[in-house]
Amino acid sequence: MPPVAITMESNPLRLASDRRLNRIAGPSALIIFGVTGDLSRKKLMPAVYDLANRGLLPPGFALVGFARRDWETQDFAQAVHDAVKSYARTPFDEDVWEQLSRGIRFVQGEFDDDAAFERLAETLKELDASRGTMGNHAFYLSIPPKSFPQVTEQLRRSGLAQQADGQWRRVVIEKPFGSDLVSARALNDVVESVFPPDSVFRIDHYLGKETVQNILALRFANQLYEPIWNERYVDHVQITMAEDIGVGGRAGYYDGIGAARDVIQNHLLQLLALTAMEEPVSFDARDLRAEKEKILSAVRLGKDLSLTTARGQYSSGWQGGERVIGFLDEEGMDPASLTETYAAIRLDINTRRWAGVPFYLRAGKRLGRRVTEIAVVFKRAPQYLFAESQTSALGQNALVIRVQPDEGVTIRFGSKVPGAGMQVRDVTMDFGYGHAFTEASPEAYERLILDVLLGDPPLFPRHEEVELSWRILDPIEEFWATQGQPEQYRPGTWGPASADALLARDGRTWRRP
Amino acid sequence: MPPVAITMESNPLRLASDRRLNRIAGPSALIIFGVTGDLSRKKLMPAVYDLANRGLLPPGFALVGFARRDWETQDFAQAVHDAVKSYARTPFDEDVWEQLSRGIRFVQGEFDDDAAFERLAETLKELDASRGTMGNHAFYLSIPPKSFPQVTEQLRRSGLAQQADGQWRRVVIEKPFGSDLVSARALNDVVESVFPPDSVFRIDHYLGKETVQNILALRFANQLYEPIWNERYVDHVQITMAEDIGVGGRAGYYDGIGAARDVIQNHLLQLLALTAMEEPVSFDARDLRAEKEKILSAVRLGKDLSLTTARGQYSSGWQGGERVIGFLDEEGMDPASLTETYAAIRLDINTRRWAGVPFYLRAGKRLGRRVTEIAVVFKRAPQYLFAESQTSALGQNALVIRVQPDEGVTIRFGSKVPGAGMQVRDVTMDFGYGHAFTEASPEAYERLILDVLLGDPPLFPRHEEVELSWRILDPIEEFWATQGQPEQYRPGTWGPASADALLARDGRTWRRP
Repeated sequence: MPPVAITMESNPLRLASDRRLNRIAGPSALIIFGVTGDLSRKKLMPAVYDLANRGLLPPGFALVGFARRDWETQDFAQAVHDAVKSYARTPFDEDVWEQLSRGIRFVQGEFDDDAAFERLAETLKELDASRGTMGNHAFYLSIPPKSFPQVTEQLRRSGLAQQADGQWRRVVIEKPFGSDLVSARALNDVVESVFPPDSVFRIDHYLGKETVQNILALRFANQLYEPIWNERYVDHVQITMAEDIGVGGRAGYYDGIGAARDVIQNHLLQLLALTAMEEPVSFDARDLRAEKEKILSAVRLGKDLSLTTARGQYSSGWQGGERVIGFLDEEGMDPASLTETYAAIRLDINTRRWAGVPFYLRAGKRLGRRVTEIAVVFKRAPQYLFAESQTSALGQNALVIRVQPDEGVTIRFGSKVPGAGMQVRDVTMDFGYGHAFTEASPEAYERLILDVLLGDPPLFPRHEEVELSWRILDPIEEFWATQGQPEQYRPGTWGPASADALLARDGRTWRRP
Repeated sequence: MPPVAITMESNPLRLASDRRLNRIAGPSALIIFGVTGDLSRKKLMPAVYDLANRGLLPPGFALVGFARRDWETQDFAQAVHDAVKSYARTPFDEDVWEQLSRGIRFVQGEFDDDAAFERLAETLKELDASRGTMGNHAFYLSIPPKSFPQVTEQLRRSGLAQQADGQWRRVVIEKPFGSDLVSARALNDVVESVFPPDSVFRIDHYLGKETVQNILALRFANQLYEPIWNERYVDHVQITMAEDIGVGGRAGYYDGIGAARDVIQNHLLQLLALTAMEEPVSFDARDLRAEKEKILSAVRLGKDLSLTTARGQYSSGWQGGERVIGFLDEEGMDPASLTETYAAIRLDINTRRWAGVPFYLRAGKRLGRRVTEIAVVFKRAPQYLFAESQTSALGQNALVIRVQPDEGVTIRFGSKVPGAGMQVRDVTMDFGYGHAFTEASPEAYERLILDVLLGDPPLFPRHEEVELSWRILDPIEEFWATQGQPEQYRPGTWGPASADALLARDGRTWRRP
């Protein structure tokens, strides 16, 4: 039976703007290494299905799993089926699934097994013929970085990394992109020795979030915000990524990594770059990356890192009405670990736009609640006509981009309190994605996988950005390595006292989001 | 029984900021002329009670009614009681009413009856003694302007306008303050020949509205808005006062007045002044009025008024599912009346801040719905990185101050549409008074009567402002007088086609609020 388009005209999701915009992937296969892992099951497989259901995948699309596990193709197909049923965003549709499942294959093997990669090559050759994937292959390495050299070398050896004319071969890698500048370079050397830089897609899934992309729309499609988006009007910026959970089963991975390497080096510095960058010449990858790199190059650390950084480890305690164990007691954790579960850093940006405006970044686990946000906090008005007693309940104006959850934008400003006086008090106005759009927000991985298949890289950081981010973080990690045990903080709080002291020294306080 | 404070500690309204701020009127009497009229019954009497209930009136406060009607004091007290029960904003409280009613008096008489004014003087003397009103008297002329000369002369003759040391005498007058510059001056000469300018309180009840006062807080207590509040960022401003009702019983009054004299000359030009003025040195009356007058002085009309103004009369038709009659068929209306029920005017303001930014004012009856709002519409961003197809659903940013109903502020801006493209669409964020504050908004008349008793005049326009407003309107009225019949428009629409053409000539459209 010839391939037919995976589409169903009665499905309202068909009206999604992507289809209207004709952003539909061409003939291609996605090969996932590490297909039995959590990320694959909870995010990648559901995202592939959701893309198919939205009509954004080509009729003959193929999904190939590669793993050590002793599976046949039907076992893998069942695993995809179960993952889709559990985690897909869009409703399950038998026709869509049927069409998608015909392109599913599984290749069993170890990474050091040359024959397994031969089998993979044969499988892809078969798909090129039977499904019309035309030699366009995206290799998604959902595997630990230590296996990257082996797998990329196998892809090279087996000829899979080699694209013929009119074909493409791409590789997708996930953070961590190394653990410091040196290891990041080494890792990159391995990957880019096999794939050219343009074929390497580094996934920072935060960049796939609607709210993060909306930073660009908010800043550059409007007249309202850009005029006040500078040191003349902005007092400081707070970028927060708070989790309410502990490290849990990830203790082994997390030990030696910590909050700064885990999320500040990638997610938070990317948010900083998008918030602070100048308007790019276009939204093309090259132009967008150029502006982000300019900002990352202009970031400066404080002279005395004991005054401009803070670390913490969550202790045991209570959270959400439950007794929770401390970081050092987590299963598989070295009880003498110096790894931080909370990190706060003040950064300055040496540009004309941002001189004198601190960017405070903080990330932590077991905090008050799960929230990621960018808060642009404005200076007070240069003078008040109001009596001091009238403005005692007036804070600073703020524009808050809520990245997750409850995606949207909030503006906080002062308004007159009803009554005969001229009391002014903070009020908020709010824009919520959920309320404003009937279009459902795609998951970040939908957007990013589609972009990989389309070869559209603006949302993927290139190696230069990764390097620049490590250049910012390395001196901090080196300093922390000399400082012994991080300060303990209780679960459900907003981090260690030293983090509050960091802002207090500047006469500021953290938001309680 | 000695006077006790009109207060009830268990009443939560006691916590209103006015009381906290100690804005409580001192010993005083309010004398209302025209006490049998609609305004008195629906607004003034209820406002007096609400002030008493909020604990903002002095223990011995006195309320004196003066009218032709053959009433005794108890009849007037009953009328006040009924008005309060029907129209007061705050709950009826027997103790408050009891205390208030002890200070109620009625004086029967015609305006040309000298003896009646003698009786009024005696009544006030008695109240000064029995209630401790101490010679502080506010005369509220809720009467047609044609009676102003007579009543003010009577007040002079009877010595009531004359304040002894340590006392005050004030007069309160309502719009219309004349029907053109000449008549306004004549009227003012009459009033100010008896009362000094500082003792004349001209009520523009729009200035008593919370949302109007909030213009000052919004602009001057915040850092966010003032930097973009100028010709560099603002494209134009639309000030709308739309009513969905016809002239109804007011036909006699309305004929010869029209929309421009009725509300543009006062309410809308005051809103324009507050929106456009520079920051005053303080919120004191003198400083605030100075800035408003600067703006009114800088207003310029278009050279060809046929291009920058529009007029209309509502025809018969359907509104809200009901058949309604046309303006010319209203009871008591001259069927050949040239009076407009809709007026739209483009004004320019010759200041550095507003050069090239048109202010479009419109007011009308039998329009789509009842709404008063100020919409500051911003220019488009100077360039878009977005493709034209991506911004087809993106309008201009706007900040809308909703004066009534649904009081609050809305910001319209562009946000990314969920999906893989970079479509941008207008969304709104909203601040609603009703949701943001637990404090109930006082009625405009509460605020204004309290300000009269406190002698606090920032919210009352002085004669210079009235003159400046007529200077703006007179040439328009003169032009219209040569133009014959206004264009007809159907009830429930947004006015005549010529009003749309007015904006279309400038490449703009009216908001549909």
